[in-house]
Order: sequence, then C-alpha cells, then structure tokens
Amino acid sequence: MTPASPAIDAESVTALLERGRTLATPVLRAAVERLAPPMDTVAAYHFGWIDAQGRPAEGDGGKAVRPALALLSAEAAGGLPEVGIPGAVAVELVHNFSLLHDDLMDGDEQRRHRDTVWKVHGPAQAILVGDALFALANDILLELGTADAARATRRLTTATRKLIDGQAQDISYEHRERVSVHECLEMEGNKTGALLACAVSIGAVLAGADDATADTLERYGHHLGLAFQAVDDLLGIWGDPEATGKRPWSDLRQRKKSLPVVAALSGQNPAADKLAHILAEDASKSEDEIADFTEEEFASRAALIEEAGGREWTAEEARRQHTTAVAALDEIDMPAEVRAQLVALADFVVVRER
Amino acid sequence: MTPASPAIDAESVTALLERGRTLATPVLRAAVERLAPPMDTVAAYHFGWIDAQGRPAEGDGGKAVRPALALLSAEAAGGLPEVGIPGAVAVELVHNFSLLHDDLMDGDEQRRHRDTVWKVHGPAQAILVGDALFALANDILLELGTADAARATRRLTTATRKLIDGQAQDISYEHRERVSVHECLEMEGNKTGALLACAVSIGAVLAGADDATADTLERYGHHLGLAFQAVDDLLGIWGDPEATGKRPWSDLRQRKKSLPVVAALSGQNPAADKLAHILAEDASKSEDEIADFTEEEFASRAALIEEAGGREWTAEEARRQHTTAVAALDEIDMPAEVRAQLVALADFVVVRER
Repeated sequence: MTPASPAIDAESVTALLERGRTLATPVLRAAVERLAPPMDTVAAYHFGWIDAQGRPAEGDGGKAVRPALALLSAEAAGGLPEVGIPGAVAVELVHNFSLLHDDLMDGDEQRRHRDTVWKVHGPAQAILVGDALFALANDILLELGTADAARATRRLTTATRKLIDGQAQDISYEHRERVSVHECLEMEGNKTGALLACAVSIGAVLAGADDATADTLERYGHHLGLAFQAVDDLLGIWGDPEATGKRPWSDLRQRKKSLPVVAALSGQNPAADKLAHILAEDASKSEDEIADFTEEEFASRAALIEEAGGREWTAEEARRQHTTAVAALDEIDMPAEVRAQLVALADFVVVRER
Repeated sequence: MTPASPAIDAESVTALLERGRTLATPVLRAAVERLAPPMDTVAAYHFGWIDAQGRPAEGDGGKAVRPALALLSAEAAGGLPEVGIPGAVAVELVHNFSLLHDDLMDGDEQRRHRDTVWKVHGPAQAILVGDALFALANDILLELGTADAARATRRLTTATRKLIDGQAQDISYEHRERVSVHECLEMEGNKTGALLACAVSIGAVLAGADDATADTLERYGHHLGLAFQAVDDLLGIWGDPEATGKRPWSDLRQRKKSLPVVAALSGQNPAADKLAHILAEDASKSEDEIADFTEEEFASRAALIEEAGGREWTAEEARRQHTTAVAALDEIDMPAEVRAQLVALADFVVVRER
C-alpha cells in the first residue's frame, strides 16, 4: 500500500493553476466590486488584493485549485475553458464565504500569512461579507439566465449545504472525546470534498454536459478533495509554517481531531494509548494553557501521533483517494489532454507542501 | 397629509395570515428537518417550535406577512395559492437567515419574547444555522427544476443581496453622527423593502407571470415594506413591549438611527436642536452607561423626538408609502378579490401594534 509517488508534470500544473487565476481573477474582482461599501473593501482585503490600510497588495490568493478545475471541467465536456469561468468564480466565492465564517467560528486569527477578516474588520463584517459572497455566487450563475446555469446553481447549492454540514460536524467533534476515522472522513468529504467536486462538474454543466457525466466528474472531485484534505491534515501538523502560512503545529494548537490524530487513536499500540491519555488530559485544559505549550510539548505530541501510525496512515489514505479519483476519469469520454491535466492536478494535490 | 386610517377588514387579514401559516409552515418544518444535527434543533428553536431544552413549544413564529403575500402573489398571476408555497418557504428561510445573523451582529438578546439563538446556542451556531437556512432557501426553489423556479431564485438572490446591503448600511450608520432621512429610507428599502417585494413577486413568477408583472408587484411590495418598517420604527420607540416582544424603548437603548430619530433631527426647531445635543452626548457614552439609563431618561428622549416632529413625520410616511403601494396594484390586471386582499394586508401593516 505504498505506491511510488506519481510522476508529476510540475510545469503543466503551474500553467493550469496560472490559467485558472488569469481567466477567473478579473471576473472575480469585477464581481466583488459590485458589493456595496464597505463590503467591497473588506472582501478585497480577504482576497489579498489590498492590505489592512486599503493599499493595493500583491496578495497570496491561495492555490487556486478550484478555478483551474472548473475550466478543465468545461473542457472535459467539450466546451471552451472560458465557458467554465462563471462556475470558477461562483465556486471561489462560496469557498471564500466559508473561509470568512469558519475563521470566525473557529477563532482562527491567521490565514494566508495575514490576519483574518474578523481580526482586522471585526466579527460583524466577517459575517456580513461572507453572506454577501454567498449571495454573489448565486447571482453570477443565475444572471446567465440559461437552464444549464440553473442546474449549475443547484449543484453549487447542494455542495454548499454539504460544506455547512461539514463545518457543523467539525464543531461538534471538537467537544467529543472520540471521533472515529469514518466520522472524520465523512466530515472532510463534506467540508472539502463537496465543493471540490462541484468545481469539477460546474464547468461541464455550463458546457451542457448531462447529469451522469457531471456526477462522475464529481466523484473524481470528491476523492480528490479527500486526498487534498488528508494532505492538508498532514501539513497542519508537520507542514513548514513558512510554506503553509499557518502557525507551527497549527492543528495541534487547536486540538483539532484531524485525520492523523483520529487514525493514531484508532491504533492498537502503546503509542496510541499514551496519546489517548495525553489528549484526554489536554481536553480538560484551557485554551490559554494550550497556547502556553512549549515547542517540545507540541513536538512530543506530533511524535506520538507518528509513532502510533497516524502520519503514515494519512499519507496512504491520500494516495488511496488519489487512485480512486483518477480511476473515475476512465468512466468519461473526454479529450486525452484534458484527462492528463486532471491527472496532473490530482498528482499535484498529494505532493504539495502548501 | 393626514388621511383617515384606512378601513380594514380585520377578519379577512387574520384569515389570510392564517392561510399563509397553514400552507407554508408544514413545508417549512419539513425543509428545516432536512438540516443535519444539531442545526435542525437550533433552527427549530429559532422558529419557536421547541424551547431551549428541546421540548415542543407553541412558539410565536412572527406575523407571517411574507408567506401570506407569496400565496396571494401566485393568485395575482392567476395561479392557485399552493403554487406560491415554495416561494413562501424560501422567503421565510431567507428572512430568518437574516434575523439569525443580524441578531448576532447587533448583539440583540431578545426576539419574539425569547432569547436569541446566539444567546442560547452560541455565536457559531447562529452563523452556521443562518448559512444553512440561506442555502436551504435556494434548494427549495431550485429543486422544482423549472425555468420559472430559476427566475424566482434569481429574484430571491437579488433581494437577499439588497438585504445584506441594508444591514451593511445599518451597521455603518451606527458609527456616524448624522444620517439623512434619504439614507435612512434607502437602508430600510434594502433591509425590509426588498424581501417583502420578493414575497409579492415570487408566487407570481412561480405561476408563470412575466417580468413586467413581477416588477410591478415588487413595486407594491417595496412600498409596503417601507410602510411596514416605518411602523416598526414607531413601535421600536413607542410600542407596547408586551405586544412587540422587545424591551421597552428598544431602539433607543441601541441608539438606533431609525426613521423617527433622523426625521426629528432633520427638523428646524428647538426640540430638534436639544435632541441633537443630547444624542451627541449619548454617542460618547459606553453601552453599559446607556443600559443604566432610567425609564425617565428614555422617556424624555422619546418625548423630544415626538416634539421635534419625528413621530408624526414617520406616521405620515407610513401612510404615504401605503398609498403608493396600493396605487401600484392598479397597474396589474388581477382578480378583484386578490387585489382587495393585497389592499387589506397593506392596511393591516400600517395599523398593527406588533
């Protein structure tokens, strides 16, 4: 179960992500400019286009995997990549709506190397601008006025509902002593898989693909999302803060029951028992006490998770989901080049370091 | 400019509101039951169907003006009232999404005689369940799968965007010393007029009405919304707490720049000057200091607003908006009985005490 890392055409992935950014960002910016002040400014800050003082910034807008997928999605159905642009923008808007609200709900102070919106502009603006981005996402699609746009909106709505379900599960798991690997995967499927799946179907739907094709594309996207999240969970513990933009041990600081942790706890070995004991003690501590942990205290927890098998299991899980994702592509008749690019993106997702 | 109060067929209005509740509530409840736990429970608490301990409650679900309007809307376009049900439910879901978020943003602790959701279930649940209701609203319409449903969703999205704009204006006005009557009306048109307008068009659109008819119905709804809000602003200062379910002087406690206040401040009279002076002093006080005001301190501010003309101007504005609303109905060819019922609802809105 430890296949060699897939061979990746790094240049091709870079070009794909760049194309997604180049085509989607101007439309995204124009959409955000339609927001009433001060929401336009707050959103521009969130996207990294301006700094907290309102000065233009060369922000880190994220990896932009979703826009790249939405354009490829249109091509997978035989359309021009441009057909996918409204879908790419709508998905990005929903993704960022959820980031704005989740950062507030979770009390996260940093995202993409910068203070989060609620830290800079206050909780009310984080709620309000999140709402506005969500509404704007529907607007962008529905103003196309076609039956396919309505179908795309329906899929986006379904994905958004799952996203919200996933966040509800995430919050409720925080207060529970034990979370099973199955529950964790279900939550991550909702929180990450659903919108990635939608990104992979939305362009195709806008290009007129039938529901069966869209469903199969979503299957690829769902498993890609689970691979993506497994890697994210690894980076949340062992990632390089310089690369991820998060604080060191960020998921451990938040006592997040992420995949490596729940997988470690499900192990039948002394390290798992020791980890369970320590985490049970941590659970009764205050947030301030956890924040005061030394580097060594976090490092020893991370070492136990690894010793109990959580790190390896999660890395394997990422590869398993990758394999399942790529297999789904064989069920659809699409241009060979598009298929190769979807495979390259899947490869990228599992080896990325940020 | 002080026409006699319109004659109202109270029985007919009660029957209309009751019909809206009877037809829409079961569908609304079934929709809310589709939410993943614990969001279904939190939403049920918000709607007043259960109490904070989860026991069934005979809640006050609000006046239910919007569902009644959505059903009449279908009839105005020659459809059966039942055709408007998904529209009624979608509008109620959006309305309650905004209440959940606004109560949290505004720090309001009471609604409909009960603690607000964020007070009982915490801010995260208020954000999350609000998001879920918004997504559900789109779902309810789009799952109909018709072109008219997509048009209805588009109108609902436009209304929701205005709703959010209105809340943004409301928040920004709180930090400003002066707000003009024009700005206040614009804000209230967004915050209250837009969704009421949508309620009055959505049933017609689902029944196949053309855009021109829907637009005219929205004009009636927009002015009805402004009349509604003017009355709400009066009740927010002079309303009977027993009837409104809000604390006495509720809008004064929040230093809300509502219509009576901004109209009073726009007056050229000694009372207006005195009021401006006092409110400027209040603006520099802390929330706790305002909360400690005596009954007499609030009463004297209310008396000054009235003396400066704010109360009478707002009451007249409600009647003006009522007149404009009813006039719009003449532009549409609809069954006489439906027209009479829309007029009766408009009459009800301006004389209600809760």
